[in-house]
Amino acid sequence: MDVRALVFDVFGTVVDWRSGVAREIARLLGERVDADALADAWRGRYLPSMDRVRRGELPWTSLDGLHRASLDELLGEFGAPETPEQVRDELVLAWHRLDAWPDSVEGLTLLKRHHVVASLSNGNVALLVNMAKHAGLPWDTVLSAELFGHYKPDAEVYDGAARLLGLRPEQVLMVAAHTDDLAAARSRGLRTAYVHRPLERGPDAPPPPPTDPDADLTVGSMTELAHRLTS
Amino acid sequence: MDVRALVFDVFGTVVDWRSGVAREIARLLGERVDADALADAWRGRYLPSMDRVRRGELPWTSLDGLHRASLDELLGEFGAPETPEQVRDELVLAWHRLDAWPDSVEGLTLLKRHHVVASLSNGNVALLVNMAKHAGLPWDTVLSAELFGHYKPDAEVYDGAARLLGLRPEQVLMVAAHTDDLAAARSRGLRTAYVHRPLERGPDAPPPPPTDPDADLTVGSMTELAHRLTS
Repeated sequence: MDVRALVFDVFGTVVDWRSGVAREIARLLGERVDADALADAWRGRYLPSMDRVRRGELPWTSLDGLHRASLDELLGEFGAPETPEQVRDELVLAWHRLDAWPDSVEGLTLLKRHHVVASLSNGNVALLVNMAKHAGLPWDTVLSAELFGHYKPDAEVYDGAARLLGLRPEQVLMVAAHTDDLAAARSRGLRTAYVHRPLERGPDAPPPPPTDPDADLTVGSMTELAHRLTS
Repeated sequence: MDVRALVFDVFGTVVDWRSGVAREIARLLGERVDADALADAWRGRYLPSMDRVRRGELPWTSLDGLHRASLDELLGEFGAPETPEQVRDELVLAWHRLDAWPDSVEGLTLLKRHHVVASLSNGNVALLVNMAKHAGLPWDTVLSAELFGHYKPDAEVYDGAARLLGLRPEQVLMVAAHTDDLAAARSRGLRTAYVHRPLERGPDAPPPPPTDPDADLTVGSMTELAHRLTS
């Protein structure tokens, strides 16, 4: 593989969204709601809300905007319909303040020595920039669905990443913990690496598949990915 | 000032384009051409070529593309019309391999502790990413005219930077060694800082003005800017 740049899915792949979102829900709403259950339900709205944009039912809406709309629906269902505006704004920012998985910063730092490393996330640019500051993610640049006006798995996102980086698709390696993201990237000519993240959905959820046989590589951590690419 | 992010002009402000381009011309074309004179002439085509895009006479063309078209014209004028394609491609990459001014990396590193730091350049994304790798520029993210399909000083570039960063214009400080760039940023509501770069056009050219009285700040280096913003 002549890979020049690595582009990373972020939620679940680089950062632990579930713990971070549940922590902020607990901090801001206290005992009134089941923080883990609300985090899971909120994430459950993620794909359907983006699909409404992808199908053209909604005009382009940033992930912050989609998160806010989903939250407004869920607070009623979770018995907290009186949550003030300011607290809702803060809750949306929980997604900007997620912590990295323990291996992410070290792995990205190693990978950055010989490759361009960039996010390629459905998160909006501000979310990704704030997250990188919070979690210490050493991106060379932030690439986001927002730059293309399309959400993954739309082809425009993968095509646009290679184009902006000035590379051919096969010079770009998409790294994700989700096989559907990798399948879409592969269909646009990118190389793919699967990261097994067994705890993404918490200790009680069924784990994701241990490997992706269609990917060029399967690894258990970003540090393993760095060693595999440089050895 | 409640400044949350700093966005930087790059050519002349953060990196020394003249020395770097002349060095690559000398390396690739040898004694056949006056490297300093060709560097100056090439940069002289910069504004006129972008203005053709800004006026709609050319469709959107990346800065790499504009650099290549200008180079093709100039090589004839400079007595090197036989320069092979591959050497022309390499010459265009000279703009990806510029060195930082001596204070830039230290200043950006200090500024990054408390602020988002991003490029806001007419260079295309690939150019800016490659330059950051070459020169060690620690951007939080790369912002480029290419993302907006408009070249500075078009309003869309300044407006777009604040929008992507999720900030109000007055929370963004534009840093540049060029008063026209700062004037355009100011007209869109951004704060402005002028960096005096007396050697941008070489030791024999008339220096730029020592201060910009219309800017919020005038500094002599990025380290001075860091100290001014944190004291």
